[in-house]
Amino acid sequence: MHQNQKFKAVILGAAGMTGGELLRILARHSQISVTAAISKSKRGTPIGVTHPHLRSYFQGMNFVSYDEAPINEADIAFVALPHGSSANEVAKLLEAGLKVVDLSADFRLNDPEVYRHWYGLDHPRPDLLESAAYGLPELNRGKIISANLTSGVGCNATASILAILPLARAGLIESVHLDVRAGSSEAGARPSTGSHHPFRSRSARIVEPFSHRHLAEVSQELELPLEKLSMRLSTMEAVRGVQACADVTLNTKLSEKELWKIYRTTYSVEPFVELCPARPSHLRFPDPKLVWGSNKALVGFALKDDIHCLVVSAIDNLMKGAAGSAVQSANLMLGIPETEGLEMQPVYPA
Amino acid sequence: MHQNQKFKAVILGAAGMTGGELLRILARHSQISVTAAISKSKRGTPIGVTHPHLRSYFQGMNFVSYDEAPINEADIAFVALPHGSSANEVAKLLEAGLKVVDLSADFRLNDPEVYRHWYGLDHPRPDLLESAAYGLPELNRGKIISANLTSGVGCNATASILAILPLARAGLIESVHLDVRAGSSEAGARPSTGSHHPFRSRSARIVEPFSHRHLAEVSQELELPLEKLSMRLSTMEAVRGVQACADVTLNTKLSEKELWKIYRTTYSVEPFVELCPARPSHLRFPDPKLVWGSNKALVGFALKDDIHCLVVSAIDNLMKGAAGSAVQSANLMLGIPETEGLEMQPVYPA
Amino acid sequence: MHQNQKFKAVILGAAGMTGGELLRILARHSQISVTAAISKSKRGTPIGVTHPHLRSYFQGMNFVSYDEAPINEADIAFVALPHGSSANEVAKLLEAGLKVVDLSADFRLNDPEVYRHWYGLDHPRPDLLESAAYGLPELNRGKIISANLTSGVGCNATASILAILPLARAGLIESVHLDVRAGSSEAGARPSTGSHHPFRSRSARIVEPFSHRHLAEVSQELELPLEKLSMRLSTMEAVRGVQACADVTLNTKLSEKELWKIYRTTYSVEPFVELCPARPSHLRFPDPKLVWGSNKALVGFALKDDIHCLVVSAIDNLMKGAAGSAVQSANLMLGIPETEGLEMQPVYPA
Amino acid sequence: MHQNQKFKAVILGAAGMTGGELLRILARHSQISVTAAISKSKRGTPIGVTHPHLRSYFQGMNFVSYDEAPINEADIAFVALPHGSSANEVAKLLEAGLKVVDLSADFRLNDPEVYRHWYGLDHPRPDLLESAAYGLPELNRGKIISANLTSGVGCNATASILAILPLARAGLIESVHLDVRAGSSEAGARPSTGSHHPFRSRSARIVEPFSHRHLAEVSQELELPLEKLSMRLSTMEAVRGVQACADVTLNTKLSEKELWKIYRTTYSVEPFVELCPARPSHLRFPDPKLVWGSNKALVGFALKDDIHCLVVSAIDNLMKGAAGSAVQSANLMLGIPETEGLEMQPVYPA
Repeated sequence: MHQNQKFKAVILGAAGMTGGELLRILARHSQISVTAAISKSKRGTPIGVTHPHLRSYFQGMNFVSYDEAPINEADIAFVALPHGSSANEVAKLLEAGLKVVDLSADFRLNDPEVYRHWYGLDHPRPDLLESAAYGLPELNRGKIISANLTSGVGCNATASILAILPLARAGLIESVHLDVRAGSSEAGARPSTGSHHPFRSRSARIVEPFSHRHLAEVSQELELPLEKLSMRLSTMEAVRGVQACADVTLNTKLSEKELWKIYRTTYSVEPFVELCPARPSHLRFPDPKLVWGSNKALVGFALKDDIHCLVVSAIDNLMKGAAGSAVQSANLMLGIPETEGLEMQPVYPA
Repeated sequence: MHQNQKFKAVILGAAGMTGGELLRILARHSQISVTAAISKSKRGTPIGVTHPHLRSYFQGMNFVSYDEAPINEADIAFVALPHGSSANEVAKLLEAGLKVVDLSADFRLNDPEVYRHWYGLDHPRPDLLESAAYGLPELNRGKIISANLTSGVGCNATASILAILPLARAGLIESVHLDVRAGSSEAGARPSTGSHHPFRSRSARIVEPFSHRHLAEVSQELELPLEKLSMRLSTMEAVRGVQACADVTLNTKLSEKELWKIYRTTYSVEPFVELCPARPSHLRFPDPKLVWGSNKALVGFALKDDIHCLVVSAIDNLMKGAAGSAVQSANLMLGIPETEGLEMQPVYPA
Repeated sequence: MHQNQKFKAVILGAAGMTGGELLRILARHSQISVTAAISKSKRGTPIGVTHPHLRSYFQGMNFVSYDEAPINEADIAFVALPHGSSANEVAKLLEAGLKVVDLSADFRLNDPEVYRHWYGLDHPRPDLLESAAYGLPELNRGKIISANLTSGVGCNATASILAILPLARAGLIESVHLDVRAGSSEAGARPSTGSHHPFRSRSARIVEPFSHRHLAEVSQELELPLEKLSMRLSTMEAVRGVQACADVTLNTKLSEKELWKIYRTTYSVEPFVELCPARPSHLRFPDPKLVWGSNKALVGFALKDDIHCLVVSAIDNLMKGAAGSAVQSANLMLGIPETEGLEMQPVYPA
Repeated sequence: MHQNQKFKAVILGAAGMTGGELLRILARHSQISVTAAISKSKRGTPIGVTHPHLRSYFQGMNFVSYDEAPINEADIAFVALPHGSSANEVAKLLEAGLKVVDLSADFRLNDPEVYRHWYGLDHPRPDLLESAAYGLPELNRGKIISANLTSGVGCNATASILAILPLARAGLIESVHLDVRAGSSEAGARPSTGSHHPFRSRSARIVEPFSHRHLAEVSQELELPLEKLSMRLSTMEAVRGVQACADVTLNTKLSEKELWKIYRTTYSVEPFVELCPARPSHLRFPDPKLVWGSNKALVGFALKDDIHCLVVSAIDNLMKGAAGSAVQSANLMLGIPETEGLEMQPVYPA
């Protein structure tokens, strides 16, 4: 590949919230350029009308239909469609020879029965499940590198998995309760009563008390049985951000020093995961406010009685929780340095 | 009327934003009780499901259709329907012998041509315009007392008129530019892209640069030609609240002392209008944050070069800007003390 | 007592956040009037300068020093001073023959050793502890009625206790984890880096991971050993509001029907506690947004596997979590109807 | 200069709000590296404790005192100190041979009398005023390139000047009223009652009714007499962002087409100024929400009666309004491409 020749990407569902964030990232990616922003509902509309913050980056470029898009010349597709409607599009793209990152839930779960249980649908393309890599590089870098199809990762699952991955790998988890709070962009770009400003503003709603469906990903990827897991999802007043508070009961007593070693071992090599220091104490637990606009994941923890561990993680749901991890996976799949296009600083205070 | 016998009120459009605020007020009004909460779209739904903050006040009461409502036994109707669809309902209610407060724009403007200009509709019932009183008691108390039909008042018009009423009455206005900022509840309860939380949150949008249609009310009621007026409307990050900044050019030089006298003369007798003191200076200009949940209107001003006056007013748009003034008018129409049911303290800080 | 003769109240610490809320409530209380707003730091300042939303209610009234206040003619004192500096003032007031509601933490805990443990201070007046009633009427109405000294209640403790009181009374609690989120007014009126708007806005900070000190009140009042309890405190983006999520492990299996019976039995008689219905599901768990400005406490719950119960409560921390419960206690102590002055409707949406 | 050898920068006042933003930008600047973050009050504290979002970029680096800083090896200094305390530091740095960008107000105004009028101080170093370049590249690129001392620009002045610069250059302005709204970060990092979250949250305060002191910069740089200008400053609920609404009375009638030409001529070559399109109308006027975290300035306008023009501009006050323009100037002074380090995409929606 010539130095000046970039990989060509198409985005399906480019008018949505995650589609917009993919465009935002790729607007300044040095090695991937967007050759088509596909949207059924916005076909013909300039990108800058739907995503006005991106006007200067995509001058003269309109949303197109799938049929208008130069699919066959593309190297990679990002699919940001709702679950259920994604799988068949993915199949077409794979057949056309593209690498695919699918941000929907369709290829996150290996087992079609599990998919049916949580999403209430027969999986449209169970034949493709085996080849799909779960797209969280911190967990699955090896598979992603060689995959043609990588799933996106649920934003709540991302925050949850990153919080407890080191403990799960070390086999230390007796049980975990995940308390997850999310900003309003998690619900997407489509207006609804629940996201109507007068009602959503400063709300603290319990969206799901015990078993949010992103739990299925946590269970599968960390090989933890559902009986040991619960996940509550609530809203918080913010547009971006997911914070996961993981109350972990360990299956063996540990010192704080040992815990630090475990977390450092896993995360010291990760470019986007940042461990919070124990001191000063008010910075021990991460706040999503500290990562807005960036691909960072912050993780911090404290130990009580050597057996109960509170681990807190914070991400920007549109970045590390969706489009950021997707581009990170794409970088791996295309042989580009993993961090390319994703090193933007957090915007703080904001 | 017996001491324990309350006036009976029906509310049309009771599931909307203003309808909810009428219910909130009347929930504890000592002399008016709601006998029907009418809503086409929510018929059969418990009031407490749509307005969960009112659950305890309207236990067992559901929204009903117009036909199910005990219209003929009612004394008064509050009509909180969109403009255009209100006028015919008002006519029916008047024929049924009720007094009516119409919160839509249908009976604010005396002249059907003016109505057509600003609302783009032929007025459905121009015959009723003459008898309708413009429902801002501070401006029009006398007419309201004897009216069978009182209009509500536009929230931006309320804030604007209260800011400059004393100057207009004194014939001192050369010209006025009104810069109005409003919270998200002004746009009503129906979800839309513009009010979708991720997009509306912390937005500062210019909704209308020069000539918001509430200007028509200001012009008519203060007898100021449109050439002397302009009104910009912008959004602010809040659910409730309207702030009007009136940049007034006076037609004669005045001292600050004279200005105070003019404002005090008009407002010292008003139960809901509160003049802000000149000192300390940071409290001189009112902030809507200081009136949330109350029927208060705050007014403050400063003078420059004896000829330019900045007058600022602040109201809660759902209260003094809509439901509060409507109940205030209803109290007058029914011979109840004007402040009844409307004396709730502002909730600050909130 | 004559009909027109009100009880006389003095407020110590009247310039603070809770002091302001006491003034807000008492501004329209029909049977208690404020005869002195005492503040060391603001002595001589008009009340309306510090609390501009209350200007119209306390025209011409300034903060005074303790020595200037008509203590001896007062019937009751509300003490809104920081813990540690409150106890000696309380003693003086009791000696002067007043009834006292102390909103600090000084008289919440019966045991001076426990007080020392959590607050790091020797209790200034342990001799008064025995006579002090814990001021949560829902828990302790009988004692409050006959008390001369009633403590306020920690806002996080109020939300927590109200969530699990019915279960605790029924002896059903094996263990409880309390996850509490609070608005910024909980930290008081004094500026600090943590409450500085650019840093506090939209923050989601873990303030205390395991053992917030309000846990001591929960443990004492519900007679639950600390080993069975934990309390995490976090910030949320709001000025008012506390939400407590109680993850309760029951010590015996229960049906949802039995749970409802237990909660209804406790709360159906309570004027300020409102149980949330199971349907529609999005209203099952309370949101503080629904109670702003009111003295309400909302409680809702769900059951999982008959053994794990999530109970959620929501209050306005300045009202039911502080000044509201204090006035409720004062009403009981003075023989006034318990709800007097406290029936204001929640302001929603806001 | 070797390819790998970066320019060395020191920052004075690095612990403040603007200091933090300079660090945020320079953390990833390819040609400038920070060799000392100077702060009197935070000396010895790790940068990542005060600016936790920057922890990973400045590992192991603490704030230092001026005396500890390697001033003599530095190429450039950014001075982010309060006005009045800045000028003498600037003089020392210039004497030490550094280029200096001073973000305080000390070198914005050419005339020490004007400085005294607006800032109430005798200028500490009037001798340096003549050589200082006003640091808004869009206005003053030529001078900045050759300057050793460049001033920062007031954030409200930046937004105001960029709104009306094309009209001023064309000599078309009869008079302008500037209505400016600003987020809370404009007031800096030091806690105060006005910026205390419960009071600042969602406030809409008129900070200055007629003559904010940034007007002095607008008047000087656009060569418009103060009699033709006024500037109101208000707060808005946001952490970042300044929006200026300029109500311009033109001194000659113009068509909208002519206006477009004037604005395009000035701004089509500017890398950070973006003109908003006339269609769709809801994007015509810029919202600061669209530029958070970026160095962009958005400008949009509409014309009424060919003589009155509303021009609206929006910037991120910490970026284009302070640290962004400062780095842009530094790039010019050092011969680096002007946009280096400043091309970060806006974070939207957020």
